[in-house]
Amino acid sequence: MSHNFATTEKMKDNLDAIFHPKSIALVGVSPDPHNWAGQTIPEAILDFGYDGDVCFVSRRTNKMYGFKTYPSIREIPGPVDLVMCSVPAPFTPHIMEDCVVKGVKAVHFFTSGFSEIGTEEGCKLEEKITRIARSNGIRVIGPNCTGLYCPESKLSFSPLFPKERGSVGCLVQSGGHSIRLVRTGAARGLRFSKVVSYGNGCDLNATDFLEYLGSDPATKVIAAYVEGTKDGRRLAEVLKKTAEMKPVVLHKGGHTQAGTRAAASHTGAIAGEARTWDALFRQTGVIRVRTIDELVDVILPFAFMPPLKGKNVAVIGYGGGMSVQAADDCEGAGLSVPLLPTAIQDELRSFTPDANNSVRNPVDTQWLVWDPDKFVDTVRIVSTWDGVDSLILYLPLDMFHIKNEEEVLNRMAESVIGSRDICSKPIVIVFHQGISPEILVKSIAVQDRFCSLRLPVYPTLGRAATAISKFIGYHQDH
Amino acid sequence: MSHNFATTEKMKDNLDAIFHPKSIALVGVSPDPHNWAGQTIPEAILDFGYDGDVCFVSRRTNKMYGFKTYPSIREIPGPVDLVMCSVPAPFTPHIMEDCVVKGVKAVHFFTSGFSEIGTEEGCKLEEKITRIARSNGIRVIGPNCTGLYCPESKLSFSPLFPKERGSVGCLVQSGGHSIRLVRTGAARGLRFSKVVSYGNGCDLNATDFLEYLGSDPATKVIAAYVEGTKDGRRLAEVLKKTAEMKPVVLHKGGHTQAGTRAAASHTGAIAGEARTWDALFRQTGVIRVRTIDELVDVILPFAFMPPLKGKNVAVIGYGGGMSVQAADDCEGAGLSVPLLPTAIQDELRSFTPDANNSVRNPVDTQWLVWDPDKFVDTVRIVSTWDGVDSLILYLPLDMFHIKNEEEVLNRMAESVIGSRDICSKPIVIVFHQGISPEILVKSIAVQDRFCSLRLPVYPTLGRAATAISKFIGYHQDH
Repeated sequence: MSHNFATTEKMKDNLDAIFHPKSIALVGVSPDPHNWAGQTIPEAILDFGYDGDVCFVSRRTNKMYGFKTYPSIREIPGPVDLVMCSVPAPFTPHIMEDCVVKGVKAVHFFTSGFSEIGTEEGCKLEEKITRIARSNGIRVIGPNCTGLYCPESKLSFSPLFPKERGSVGCLVQSGGHSIRLVRTGAARGLRFSKVVSYGNGCDLNATDFLEYLGSDPATKVIAAYVEGTKDGRRLAEVLKKTAEMKPVVLHKGGHTQAGTRAAASHTGAIAGEARTWDALFRQTGVIRVRTIDELVDVILPFAFMPPLKGKNVAVIGYGGGMSVQAADDCEGAGLSVPLLPTAIQDELRSFTPDANNSVRNPVDTQWLVWDPDKFVDTVRIVSTWDGVDSLILYLPLDMFHIKNEEEVLNRMAESVIGSRDICSKPIVIVFHQGISPEILVKSIAVQDRFCSLRLPVYPTLGRAATAISKFIGYHQDH
Repeated sequence: MSHNFATTEKMKDNLDAIFHPKSIALVGVSPDPHNWAGQTIPEAILDFGYDGDVCFVSRRTNKMYGFKTYPSIREIPGPVDLVMCSVPAPFTPHIMEDCVVKGVKAVHFFTSGFSEIGTEEGCKLEEKITRIARSNGIRVIGPNCTGLYCPESKLSFSPLFPKERGSVGCLVQSGGHSIRLVRTGAARGLRFSKVVSYGNGCDLNATDFLEYLGSDPATKVIAAYVEGTKDGRRLAEVLKKTAEMKPVVLHKGGHTQAGTRAAASHTGAIAGEARTWDALFRQTGVIRVRTIDELVDVILPFAFMPPLKGKNVAVIGYGGGMSVQAADDCEGAGLSVPLLPTAIQDELRSFTPDANNSVRNPVDTQWLVWDPDKFVDTVRIVSTWDGVDSLILYLPLDMFHIKNEEEVLNRMAESVIGSRDICSKPIVIVFHQGISPEILVKSIAVQDRFCSLRLPVYPTLGRAATAISKFIGYHQDH
């Protein structure tokens, strides 16, 4: 380790203070509708009921969104822990100087237009704010990012995020991806401990946040999106150390030539050699994913499920084509779909017709759509077999040719919920939602019920199989 | 070729008659709500306005769904071209005998419970109906399948399918997959010439339908889902011959051990060695896909776009993280994302701020969400460059943290529609729809507009890139 314990402890205190500020000041926010920060941060602060002190800095008005305004940071009477700043880049050094005078602990810059645009001016501005920060002990988040979401301290950069806290900690270099991750993750039941979008990472960077989340007791699993780093060696060390403590799932953006170029334009990231990153994944036990969707896919079982004992799955649903797909996707992803023992097949056959069904594994049973009680019996019987470690239930609402799909949807929902109540083994759901807007809206309501029961729900068999396989792989390696 | 011209011509006539029956009889259909065929076929016939003669065979009632009923096929007064049958398997030989007496041309069996259930009785029943069919010149579709959809002749097995005809011909061994393919394809703008789900294929099989669609002038591209065949050699020959005439995109179900077992339970298919199929794809020029979703993905450009001159794409959208993903996904799939020439970058920069944008390719521009006119200008300028063969426009509606997402959605829609009007090069859309049910419903309406303009729309960058790469590969090889 190239850094010592005292440094780590100090950083932990710094970051604790940043994620739990007692007072915040918003600078550069205006009611201009083109200024999203100006619309969403006040909304988020009000909606979340942030209970620290809030004030706005503006030369133009005395009151904004119901909060007091001051002409400069210096003139705010009480202390200011955290400044959230969205003034244009050229004014940021001046803001930093005000923060020094005021004794501000940390500044988050939404502002873009620094090293990522590749101009000499942009690079110099970034160096300048970093230098002021470093020589005065002020921590900087950003620039060029969306900042902090911490439901525990009622802090959010969007009014659309969940208010409840959870166990997923995230560091996300991209602002857009940070929103995508929280919103798509929330729609599948994930809740978060702390999320930070850190952009160019001129001061606090991936390594700092990773180390902090690694030691954060509220964080059970870490989701990360990283485009690049200026200190690859320390990142590698911290990744290894953190992945030994808790699961780390990482999406590395910029692994092709054009992707590397895009990453440089986006966050000024030095993406590093693809081969270096390949080695890093192999050496650290960090789980690699390739998209934000897959990041959510792989985080889900860590957030919701106990470790699985092995890779044997029973797949139960309705539809022969889907059964074939399920078997191919599971075995293709490294899972095993063992033939059910004759005794279990016979037990299923005692109440399941031969025609249009199969009891071998995958189990293709009409009871999913006709009789939830019999479907639950099917799940109970299959799950008693020692040869199975988990169950995938697939609900193909896109394979019906009847007008009354809602009836089918309701029976599917009942089948799943009943199964969860009686099944001793972990259950994963694959849900092809309905196609028309009407049934799609109803599908989402059903999916929300599944999520609230902490069932991981996937839109395709392939995505479920890949995620579960990575989940099992982690526990086999640790 | 192991079969002669006369046989092929006769088969063509047979199948023409099957897809364009002048009279149909439905046997075994009842108003029992558990009998889906009983609900959907009459609805489909009524909704589609099928204008041939329709009658039902039932011993229980004189009239059903407004159609005349007869106690047996023999007692129908006029001729019967096509029988659609869903009586239980043990009664099917009797139905076949009635068809012989009546001079019926073809029978489609929804009925399951034949060779696919693996019992001696099931296999014998299938042999029996096949023998009766063969010795009396009756063609059989199925058993164990959903049958025929041909908008041209107003014939459908579901009231939920599009009534307009199109250029996509499909042969789909699985009934569930046939519905999924038509419904998810239709939701993305595809329209169909002829679709057949043929199940166990005891008489007419994949090879017959493939050959027929190959010579069908209404079919421009063929989508296929096949689990197995009893005559691999002839299938290989016909695949090769057909793929020389028009694009064939094929999803082979059952390529793992468990998948092969599931395919046998589903359609009694002899799935064949995975290696044999791998070789077949290499040798025939058939495009391989792995899911029904991917089947739709790859069919889309064939249905909507002219051949592309090369693999250079310009990617234009909003969001830095998405730009990195776009570049990685495109280059990962074998496309090229070339840096735009300085002159074009400068022209874009003349009206695009440096901060929070990038004009290099991917082009990450705020105008997508703020000013459709400037976005259209961006597309116009980029598309003039010879170094670009097609454009991918990406619309990440899941990356906003504001409450009024509808405004953003509307500007995105305007940006895309304006771009299509002025752009001389083919455009592909990647659309991350909204997350809340309300905005999701509005997203679907916007996507429908794109589809009606014959724009291929994909839900992720990765799926778009893979599909476009396969599309380009086809034209490079042919």
